[in-house]
Amino acid sequence: MKNTDLQDYSHKRYNILTGEWVLVSPHRAKRPWQGQNETVNNEKRPTHDETCYLCAGNTRINGEINPKYTDVFVFTNDFAALQSDSPSFNVKDGLLVAESETGICKVICFSPDHSKSLADMSATEIQKVVFAWQREYKELADNPKINYVQIFENKGAVMGCSNPHPHGQIWSQSTLPNEVDKKNTQQLNYFNKNNSSLLGDYLAQELEKQERIIFENEGFVVLIPFWAVWPFEAMIVPKKHQANILEMNNDEALQYAEAISVITKAYDKLFNTSFPYSSGIHQAPTDGNENKHWHWHMSFYPPLLRSATVKKFMVGYEMFGSPQRDITAETAVKMLRDLL
Amino acid sequence: MKNTDLQDYSHKRYNILTGEWVLVSPHRAKRPWQGQNETVNNEKRPTHDETCYLCAGNTRINGEINPKYTDVFVFTNDFAALQSDSPSFNVKDGLLVAESETGICKVICFSPDHSKSLADMSATEIQKVVFAWQREYKELADNPKINYVQIFENKGAVMGCSNPHPHGQIWSQSTLPNEVDKKNTQQLNYFNKNNSSLLGDYLAQELEKQERIIFENEGFVVLIPFWAVWPFEAMIVPKKHQANILEMNNDEALQYAEAISVITKAYDKLFNTSFPYSSGIHQAPTDGNENKHWHWHMSFYPPLLRSATVKKFMVGYEMFGSPQRDITAETAVKMLRDLL
Ligand SMILES: O=P(O)(O)O[C@H]1O[C@H](CO)[C@@H](O)[C@H](O)[C@H]1O
Ligand SMILES: O=P(O)(O)O[C@H]1O[C@H](CO)[C@@H](O)[C@H](O)[C@H]1O
Repeated sequence: MKNTDLQDYSHKRYNILTGEWVLVSPHRAKRPWQGQNETVNNEKRPTHDETCYLCAGNTRINGEINPKYTDVFVFTNDFAALQSDSPSFNVKDGLLVAESETGICKVICFSPDHSKSLADMSATEIQKVVFAWQREYKELADNPKINYVQIFENKGAVMGCSNPHPHGQIWSQSTLPNEVDKKNTQQLNYFNKNNSSLLGDYLAQELEKQERIIFENEGFVVLIPFWAVWPFEAMIVPKKHQANILEMNNDEALQYAEAISVITKAYDKLFNTSFPYSSGIHQAPTDGNENKHWHWHMSFYPPLLRSATVKKFMVGYEMFGSPQRDITAETAVKMLRDLL
Repeated sequence: MKNTDLQDYSHKRYNILTGEWVLVSPHRAKRPWQGQNETVNNEKRPTHDETCYLCAGNTRINGEINPKYTDVFVFTNDFAALQSDSPSFNVKDGLLVAESETGICKVICFSPDHSKSLADMSATEIQKVVFAWQREYKELADNPKINYVQIFENKGAVMGCSNPHPHGQIWSQSTLPNEVDKKNTQQLNYFNKNNSSLLGDYLAQELEKQERIIFENEGFVVLIPFWAVWPFEAMIVPKKHQANILEMNNDEALQYAEAISVITKAYDKLFNTSFPYSSGIHQAPTDGNENKHWHWHMSFYPPLLRSATVKKFMVGYEMFGSPQRDITAETAVKMLRDLL
């Protein structure tokens, strides 16, 4: 193959982690956009907002008062999607199949400063968020009813975030969600066959090629995966084969924090706006097994395509067929790298 | 199980067609919404718009002039995501895997009347759209390079539709997209084991229960599947076991058109707005095989949740874990049924 083919012609790329495909249409990047424009709010927020239910010292909807926290603050979600105390039941009525699903949902405020986002925080400040993720993952892992912990952030109104205060969430539950289940299977099959980490081997290949790397430090690589779906999707991968975030020592936590800082800052510069995204950490289930086949990683799925107001819509074809992208991973890497 | 469990407690439901799960959180339906509101344009459009590139007699971006069509008009997409004449190539470079993908993309105008949507059209008018889908499916099926035909519609700006003129699309290609591949496998496994249609057997069960049926006529059922993801997701299923839309005779095409008319009209009444959605027809591949295991169906994925301006966001947890819904399928059915 000539690599130019991948920049010129419609093709599909294989996601080694999920076993699914993405349709790439590089020739289509120049089609005119006459559709919906998002509204952008580039107004600077105050450092404290009286009406914000996440700011320190304020009262939440359920009447609880937030402590006067100074760095990170974690609490149980007042409107949790998963209940921890519901009855256990199983439905198998012909082709109707359902199961009770219990869990614990938490909210994690990254900073008391209402005006900030991860992109505005120092690596040392972000390291405290990483420490909080580690503490929460450990605590939930020790709970026998919790077998998987999903850490994520929805940033920006366009990503369904209802409060601009810098915060993320943790939804933990008794079974593996769809996406995690796919990655579990793919990594397990590869590990059983090759006795090495799928993502580790992929990383080695990318470090050799240097075509999709945005940034690297001692412990981490930030890259756009070959099979990226969202226009500026990116992934942070630890160089060491680690199954979950607890395996990071404090130095590595700081290197990871630096990686988060670098990619979120580059994002903000790209379209000169506080860049919306959903990010999430995929890591080993907390089911008591060793899960040696897992190599944890963090992904960013940002919706913007051409400007602060024009996003990529994952609709008709994407919902019924496969995800589709116009700009290639290689073009996106170049744009982000230029902003470091 | 008590059915009340499914209305009260967090649980997951199994999608028999894809093999994936949806997380249902009925207790969460009442959480307050402080996030993004969509803008609604309920302004009546003119029947002809000089600036619309889909209206009859107007000039498209590539200089072509639309005929003065009087019912349905089909043309090849000027910005096709799939190229029909690109070289064929295969990438297998370690863990980088890609394949060329060729195809044909078409646009199909449902009516010359710029002001209308399917919800404003009569069943006889919609029947002409169905005839056009049949013609296009047949023509593409006869093309040896086309092995799958995805018919879909993106309706509304919030669904990435860039032109309000009533229209849908057809993307056809040489391999099966992800979602179709899943449904192909699930239906094939069931058919091999039971020698009957998975969806047909499911339909019989739903018709027996009458808990999730919105509407039925002689040939078709409109229902909310047990495993629905979107708040008001619905599915149209032919009662006969048919692999693709070519198996419909003209009477059945009219019954199908009536089903489309009923659900789209109910949608518009729900929040008193032109209801946005993506819809799509999943049917047998056009690979030359008999594909007896396929039972074609049409699904509607509408994003609105509580009003014309508040939609459900499929973001963080949904992207990294599983789709999640608050309102149950059974509650949604009641709301839609009341509007017939
Ligand atoms: O083809 P259109 O209407 O310009 O574009 C729309 O539908 C396509 C197919 O679902 C999507 O890929 C685009 O993101 C969306 O904006
Ligand atoms: O929990 P929040 O921030 O209120 O809600 C947001 O994130 C959730 C988890 O991704 C989604 O289910 C909601 O649709 C979204 O609006």
